[in-house]
Amino acid sequence: MSFRTRLRYRFGDIDEAGIAYYPKLLHYCHCAFEDWWSDALQHPYPRLLHDDKLGLPAVKLEVEFYAPVRYGDEPWVHVAVLRLGTSSVEFAFWMTRGDDPKPLCRARVLTAAVDMDTMQKRALPEVWRTKFQQHLIREEDFPSGR
Amino acid sequence: MSFRTRLRYRFGDIDEAGIAYYPKLLHYCHCAFEDWWSDALQHPYPRLLHDDKLGLPAVKLEVEFYAPVRYGDEPWVHVAVLRLGTSSVEFAFWMTRGDDPKPLCRARVLTAAVDMDTMQKRALPEVWRTKFQQHLIREEDFPSGR
Amino acid sequence: MSFRTRLRYRFGDIDEAGIAYYPKLLHYCHCAFEDWWSDALQHPYPRLLHDDKLGLPAVKLEVEFYAPVRYGDEPWVHVAVLRLGTSSVEFAFWMTRGDDPKPLCRARVLTAAVDMDTMQKRALPEVWRTKFQQHLIREEDFPSGR
Amino acid sequence: MSFRTRLRYRFGDIDEAGIAYYPKLLHYCHCAFEDWWSDALQHPYPRLLHDDKLGLPAVKLEVEFYAPVRYGDEPWVHVAVLRLGTSSVEFAFWMTRGDDPKPLCRARVLTAAVDMDTMQKRALPEVWRTKFQQHLIREEDFPSGR
Repeated sequence: MSFRTRLRYRFGDIDEAGIAYYPKLLHYCHCAFEDWWSDALQHPYPRLLHDDKLGLPAVKLEVEFYAPVRYGDEPWVHVAVLRLGTSSVEFAFWMTRGDDPKPLCRARVLTAAVDMDTMQKRALPEVWRTKFQQHLIREEDFPSGR
Repeated sequence: MSFRTRLRYRFGDIDEAGIAYYPKLLHYCHCAFEDWWSDALQHPYPRLLHDDKLGLPAVKLEVEFYAPVRYGDEPWVHVAVLRLGTSSVEFAFWMTRGDDPKPLCRARVLTAAVDMDTMQKRALPEVWRTKFQQHLIREEDFPSGR
Repeated sequence: MSFRTRLRYRFGDIDEAGIAYYPKLLHYCHCAFEDWWSDALQHPYPRLLHDDKLGLPAVKLEVEFYAPVRYGDEPWVHVAVLRLGTSSVEFAFWMTRGDDPKPLCRARVLTAAVDMDTMQKRALPEVWRTKFQQHLIREEDFPSGR
Repeated sequence: MSFRTRLRYRFGDIDEAGIAYYPKLLHYCHCAFEDWWSDALQHPYPRLLHDDKLGLPAVKLEVEFYAPVRYGDEPWVHVAVLRLGTSSVEFAFWMTRGDDPKPLCRARVLTAAVDMDTMQKRALPEVWRTKFQQHLIREEDFPSGR
């Protein structure tokens, strides 16, 4: 089951070509990741970082851009889990517009669970593994625009 | 005597109106402030923050925009000191293009010297007061586009 | 009567001092300005720019920072009108946290009404003048943290 | 033969974990791409967009992060061409620190040549194909940190 959040694409997030600057699209994926923690998991990401000393930095990204996002768009950003390892999690993100299920772009982001004090890899705590499992999707359910 | 640094206005720093997004112009002033520490004072700002535990957060800004900055512009950003208090420093920033001395915008930024561990105000160390004095300009030498 | 919108302060909007990077606070004010158009005036700012060919670029800013904003904060950003000229509008922005009315920062932003095709000043259309009047506040109602 | 440019990692480009926010690392790759146009090809990217009506938007990204970038780092960002198609170019970017050839991160960015008026694919002009060939590297010369 995936989570989705609606974000407003902003005035200053456009590039000289008049469309979304791609680093900003990745910023919007991170915003959706944060909303997923706050609104789906009910545990804001700052609490995970500061109280639980657990972080999930990206180690690998794969991103495909299918159609431009423009200023004034209010895309849905969808978040799901593709794979769960001992100390790694692969997240899926994709953006859609309105009721159209066809994605505008999608990203898979491999993250490593790290201890925030040492920045060393650690095992993903069982409490999160269980929660993350509820957001697992199968590879064939990760929508592609190709 | 003021310091200047040349910055490239970037592809993603434009807004939907096709001109510089104003929060980005303030980012460019902060970049120039960092270049001033590295290149004029020969003491990079991260060293000041981490080794000397001294920071200079902004407490007040006044900014005037005279002419648009566009993608492809490589404005000079000028840095000088307008006033030195016991624990405060007012900086002047202005941008010019090519050899034209007329400013595109200018900002005065009042900062407070703070201890980075406590975020409490502290006296500005004498070593920096002396250095800053070399960059003092008079109010009438702070160029205006009005 | 002022408008307010709640924004999430994001993971990547922090500076090395661990608090809000001040150009980002101004970005958040602009986000609130856009939300005001969409949610209060029911006329999204991109439509104003593209269909009505009217823009409101900033010509002058005055900003005061009273208390740090941190990652995980979800500040209210308040928007109101301080002054209405023939072709200029001065907006007031301030941020508060939770139920505390004490502002974390405030900004007054003087904007000029411009024709988006020519970027020349033009008179503010009557329809917007009337709408803006409903959001006028008096100077003494613009909250200060000093 | 690859091109390199030295960029200053900035105060506001850090995330709450105290390291480079990954969307900003991609922004730095785009900055290096722009410097490559200005300094290696001697044809600034804004001229390509506006005068030649040619753009190179990203259609696919693959990024690997090997080691954190921090505030105060002045990484070299390297730019090269991995593959040249009829209307597509795959670029390689990697960051190194000081004299250490080990990359901190690397990205391959597949771009499509588009007409800026129509945003439709077009053939890459011969003049650029020839120039780009001088920056071709072999897959095995694209440094990996794994």
